Parts: sequence; C-alpha cells; structure tokens
Amino acid sequence: MTTLSPYDSMSPVTEAAYRAKAAAATLAPLPRAEKDDALLAIADALEVRASEVVEANAKDVAKAREAGISEGMIDRLTLTPERIRAIASDVRDVAALPDPVGEVVRGSTLPNGIDLRQVRVPLGVVGIIYEGRPNVTVDAAALCLKSGNAVLLRGSSSAYQSNTALVRVLRDAVGGAGLPADAVQLVPGESRDSVRELMRARGLVDVLIPRGGASLINTVVQESVVPVIETGTGNCHVYVDAQADLDMAVEILINSKAHRVGVCNAAETLLVHQDIAADFLPRALDALAEAGVTVHADERVQAHAKDSKATVVEATAEDWETEYLSYDIAAAVVDSLDKAVEHIRLWTSGHTEAIVTTSQQAARRFTQLVDSTTVAVNASTRFTDGGQFGFGAEIGISTQKLHARGPMGLPELTSTKYIVTGDGHIRR
Amino acid sequence: MTTLSPYDSMSPVTEAAYRAKAAAATLAPLPRAEKDDALLAIADALEVRASEVVEANAKDVAKAREAGISEGMIDRLTLTPERIRAIASDVRDVAALPDPVGEVVRGSTLPNGIDLRQVRVPLGVVGIIYEGRPNVTVDAAALCLKSGNAVLLRGSSSAYQSNTALVRVLRDAVGGAGLPADAVQLVPGESRDSVRELMRARGLVDVLIPRGGASLINTVVQESVVPVIETGTGNCHVYVDAQADLDMAVEILINSKAHRVGVCNAAETLLVHQDIAADFLPRALDALAEAGVTVHADERVQAHAKDSKATVVEATAEDWETEYLSYDIAAAVVDSLDKAVEHIRLWTSGHTEAIVTTSQQAARRFTQLVDSTTVAVNASTRFTDGGQFGFGAEIGISTQKLHARGPMGLPELTSTKYIVTGDGHIRR
Repeated sequence: MTTLSPYDSMSPVTEAAYRAKAAAATLAPLPRAEKDDALLAIADALEVRASEVVEANAKDVAKAREAGISEGMIDRLTLTPERIRAIASDVRDVAALPDPVGEVVRGSTLPNGIDLRQVRVPLGVVGIIYEGRPNVTVDAAALCLKSGNAVLLRGSSSAYQSNTALVRVLRDAVGGAGLPADAVQLVPGESRDSVRELMRARGLVDVLIPRGGASLINTVVQESVVPVIETGTGNCHVYVDAQADLDMAVEILINSKAHRVGVCNAAETLLVHQDIAADFLPRALDALAEAGVTVHADERVQAHAKDSKATVVEATAEDWETEYLSYDIAAAVVDSLDKAVEHIRLWTSGHTEAIVTTSQQAARRFTQLVDSTTVAVNASTRFTDGGQFGFGAEIGISTQKLHARGPMGLPELTSTKYIVTGDGHIRR
Repeated sequence: MTTLSPYDSMSPVTEAAYRAKAAAATLAPLPRAEKDDALLAIADALEVRASEVVEANAKDVAKAREAGISEGMIDRLTLTPERIRAIASDVRDVAALPDPVGEVVRGSTLPNGIDLRQVRVPLGVVGIIYEGRPNVTVDAAALCLKSGNAVLLRGSSSAYQSNTALVRVLRDAVGGAGLPADAVQLVPGESRDSVRELMRARGLVDVLIPRGGASLINTVVQESVVPVIETGTGNCHVYVDAQADLDMAVEILINSKAHRVGVCNAAETLLVHQDIAADFLPRALDALAEAGVTVHADERVQAHAKDSKATVVEATAEDWETEYLSYDIAAAVVDSLDKAVEHIRLWTSGHTEAIVTTSQQAARRFTQLVDSTTVAVNASTRFTDGGQFGFGAEIGISTQKLHARGPMGLPELTSTKYIVTGDGHIRR
C-alpha cells in the first residue's frame, strides 16, 4: 500500500499555495529572533553563492540580448557580485527593523472588566506578481518573512533562471535556519496561466500585490478573486500657486520631473496659476529645456513659450492622463487653486500631488481638497517612498484606499486580531 | 439650444454613483460640527415624520404576509413609532462619537526636516448591500455621514417601500442641514441587476460591504471588481481545555450558544479535551438540553450522552463547517489543545473562538495559534461586537484580513493620506 501525498491531485500552483499556507501557520507565532536568524542566513548565503546566481542570470541576459531587449531593461535584469552584495545588505537592513507582529494597536479594559487587545498578526500568504528586476525576488521575500508571512513569487519569465537560482538560495537558507523552506516559493510555470491560478486561489492566498506596468495591474484588479493591493501608477502633479517662491518652484518642478523619470513618484503634469504664469513659465520652460524635457502644453502655456529654448508640443486630452515615465511633461495654466484641484481630481491616478506656495491658506486648502496617497507642500513629489518616509523598506506604493495607502512598509503586510480576556464573562 | 445634463446617458445606478462621488468630495473636508448637525437633523426628522415611514412600512409588511413570510422575518421588517424613536436615538449616539477624519495616525519629522503626517480621510463612496431589516438603512447612512463618506444603500426588495420612505426623510434632513442630499441614496431598481452594476462601478464606488447571508456575500466577493469587505459568517467554536473551571465552562458554553442563536457571534461547535470529557460532558449535555439545544455529536461525545437528557444526533463532516444559527451545536472530543486548534483552523469561518482554561500556558498557546478575528479566553463568543468593544457603533464584523478585521467602527470607514511639508525640499 502506498501512501498518497495530499498534494497528489493538485496543479503545481495550487500545491505551492497549500504548502505556503501550511508554512504560514508555522511562521505566524515565531518570535522575532528566529525570523531575523533566517534573514541573516539568507544574506550570508547570497554572498557565499553569488557566482551560482550570476551564472543563472547570465542565461537570462543572453536570452534578453537575443530578443533585442533595450539596454535599459538589460541593465535592470543584470546581477553582478556587487549588486548581490548590495541585495544581501538590504536583507540585513530588514532584519534590523522592528517586528510588526505582536504590536498592540489598541487596548483597553472594558466596563465589565474584560481586557481587550488588538494585536498585529501576519496576513498569511502573500502573492507578489512582478516584472523585470530580480532583486525584487529577494526584497519581497525578506519583507514577507520578517512580517511572518509566506510568499509566493511570480516574477517575469525574462528573469526565470535568475529567480530560480535566487529562490533556491533563499529556501536553502530558510530551511537551514530551521524555518519551513515552503515559506518562500517561486510560482511554477512561466505562462500567464500560473498568474490566473494565483488569482483564483481565494482561501489559500490572502493578498496579491501586482508590481509593474498598468496593464498587469489592471488585469489582476479586474480578474482576481483574491484581495488585491494596487500599486504604483503615478500621474503626479506639481501645482505652482499664485503666491510662490519662483526659485523654489523651479527647483521642485525640475526635481519632481527629471531627478529620475522612470519612477512612479516622478511628476507628469505641471499646473500654473494664471496670476503667476507670465513670471514663472518663461523660467520654468528654460529649466525644463535644460533638463531635456519636452513640454506638452495647453494654449495658455504655449503663449509664454515663444522666446523659450523649450521643446513645446500641443497637449491633447490624452496628455492629462498620461504617465510618461520619460523626459516629457504636460503643462497647463489654471484660473485658480480650485481649478487646479478640479483638474487633479479629474485626471490623477491618486499617487502624489505637490503645491508650491507661500500662502498658508492655499497650502491648507490644497491638502484638504486633494485626495491622493500623498500631498506635498513645498517639497518634491519624489519623497513619496518607503525609504524616504523612514519605513526602512517598501513592498510597493499602494494607490488604493483600502488596507494600505501610499508607501507600504512592514505594518502594511500585517492584519490584526482581537484578544478578549475575561474571568468567565458572559453576556447578559 | 438645450443644455444636456452630464448624467443624461447614464444608467440610473451609474448616475447614482456619480452623484455620490461628487457629494463625497464635498463631505470629505467638512468639520465635525457640520456633519453632526446633519445627523441631529436626521434624528429629529425621523421622529417628526415617523407616521410617513410607518405607513410605507405597512405596505412592505402586507406584501410579506401575502407571500407567507415567517413571523420572525416579519418582525424584523416591521417598523413602529417606538422602533423609529430607538433608531433616531441611535443616530444621536453616532453624532456623539468622535470624528475619525483628521486623526493623525502617524507623524514624525524626517532627518531632512520634512514634516510627515499620516491623516485619516474618508473612503469616499461606500456601497452597502443588505437584507431584511430597514433600521440598517439609517444606521449605515449615519455611520457613513459621520465618517465623511457618501453612501449607496442597496436594501432588500422586501423592504423597498420602507427604505424609500426612510431615505426620503434622510435626504431631506441632510439637504436641509446644508449638506449634499446625494450623500445618501437608495440604489435604484429592485432587481439583481442593480447589485451587478454596483459591483462593476470601480472608480466611482470605493468599497462594497455586503451584510447578509453567505450566498449574498459569496456572490459579491466572487463577482465584484470594486473592493469588498466580507462580513458576518460565524462558525464560532468553544474549546474546553484539560484544566478548566467546569462551572465557568458550562456558563460560557450556554451563553455562547443560546444567548441569541441567530447572530454571527453565536457558538456553533463545542470541542472538549479528552482528559476532562468524562467530567464535563454530562453536565454540558444536560445544560444544553435545558437550553433546548440539539447536539450533533461525534462518537466520543455520544459515549458520554447515555444518561443525559440531551437530544443527540450523529455528527457528519458537514456539521463541522455549518453555521446553524439555530438551537443546534456540533460537538467533538479532541486529544489535545493542538488538535483543537487544528480542528478550528480547518473548519472555522475565522470569526470568534473561545477557550475555557485555568492554564496560563494553554491560554497563551491558543491565542497565538488560532487565526480568527477574535480569540476569547474565559469569555463568551458573544462579546465580538462593536458595541461590546466600546466602538459606539458597528457597520459590520469583517471576517477578512485586509483593511479591517473583526467589528468595524468609524475608523474602519476611513483611509489615510500622507501630508509632506517642506521648505523647498528636493531629493538629492
């Protein structure tokens, strides 16, 4: 008589999810020290076995080159011994962060003498669906382990060899530290079917976090039966108010737009109050030209562009909703702060909007009326970031309102439960 | 030339959602006093116009009687002047609660001098899909208004006349208090199509909260593209440990099961440690018999039932996952605390589980390993309730892990946003 494994009749993705759920039950009550030991073992193993990972990565890179992938994408895909050391160092940083699990979020003694405590607990099984960069594999696994969650990693097929090697190293280290290796798993299969299976795994997977382009995120949001946290699309605005320090406004505009153009907290639209347009726009357009930025301008901005060095093209309605992720910016003149807010509410993806103003009243009204994850007053949009916010780590930037909004650190990877302690209390 | 309304080409449900979104933008920055004035106006209007509501309710009740609906259901549907006064009083209680909006959840000055504040903001538009009782119409509207949200109410068609009358009173009062009447709307249409449209209204509706039976909740969870908060199914367990005060255990068991059987925090399964079964079960079975409870027992429980007055039937696997909501309980003997936890993790809906024990070690292990919204130690499962927890109000009990878990009060009807304030800060 042969003993059947309970996993025998399952698809590989469902089996992975079941194994993750079992591992999550083991992880949940673990004290911080055991989780940190596993993280430090991961960091060490990554350094010791760097050549094994680099070798696997070389296969992905060669395949990408054959496919004629852009040099920028190939750079993001490539792992070197130095980059692996940097990844290992990030894992040690995660180990050094406080453990969110067990934190008492709320607590009181009820009138009847019952002690009530709301305590942070892990979510359980977290599925991450991501593109390109293999360092996300390690980052996401480290953050999930630290917060007591098992993780199912569904990376890009372009990084399949790299991710397979990385997850082998991670699992060996986790297992070696006495934790269940199934807490970290690469979702089997390179096709879209495995994503679809993940999206149906309600009851096994507690949350899916898609990280990547808008089309990936939309697919997951539309089709998933598992709860989803949306991340990352950023059509961010910089609004220069009627009263503003123009030097500051130019600096914030250029930093928001051109400090790094391929990221979700880069500015994509400039709005200028009509009272300051004649003073500000000529300077702003020259500065944008110097930074190499093409301006997609409405008619009123164009009127100020005649003597400018800027490359100016006519804006269409589409420009107001575009996340360029390139050296392009949409620009419009608005009649008032309220019109700026109206424009933003209509077109924004709800990520980050900045106001530059010397008026306390304007700052207050803008922060009250704009409904995005982050509202910046006299600061660059580029600060919306878990690292900048002091969270020590970031699993993504949520642009939805439920559960988490804005940069997500370790607490956002937890849920809570209530502990009710009495002495035989019953309800009358 | 006629001016077209922007709503002209929309379906009635979509129009309602657009109007709600516009109203939500007006509500979001309102200070507490203006929202409280509207709530007090609602309470007054309900009392003044009680006869109008009772008259409409009589039509629903007559229709229910014709359809041969049970007396219990008819009682839940019926509104009397006294009941309306009680509902108005609940609205005044909500007005007296603190406003969650504007609360600073987290705040710090970053190393670069930026001030970071995470502040509670309304979710926006909340859709509530519910059955039966028309008092939910007013409760839900009051909680949403207090937390700065617009609400779309989709009640049962059996209460359509009552809900229509109630919402007319609510809208008049809200409008009279100077707030947008569209902040409170009954979703038009009595058919299931209106529910389907709500579930597709992503971008207009921020969250859907189904309150009602398991089939309604499952449909919404499976089909909705709008984020959902699951509420309410409760297959709650009482576990009596090897070391337990038997008087306390009987009291907690009977209170958990029979204090009110039709509610989600009522116990549905009893688990007994084998070491205490011979002492405890005869007493427990007699007490259950006295309370009129039928016991669906496994073999080991049946072995102790011989001399008991209890009505005992044989348990099947189905009993372990059944939420009876009636004078029935499943019962099993387990080998150990860990086996009790295993049984619970396998079968629970994740609502509330109680342990009765005198052992500190057992209490600690049970609370660590059981993963439900609420774990009760030496207390009845019936305490899982917003009112009992001191939240002053409850919009439902979330049994999911994302966003809210357990009883949901006003803070659970909010999201947050970050305010970043600098002096021209840019990222280096």
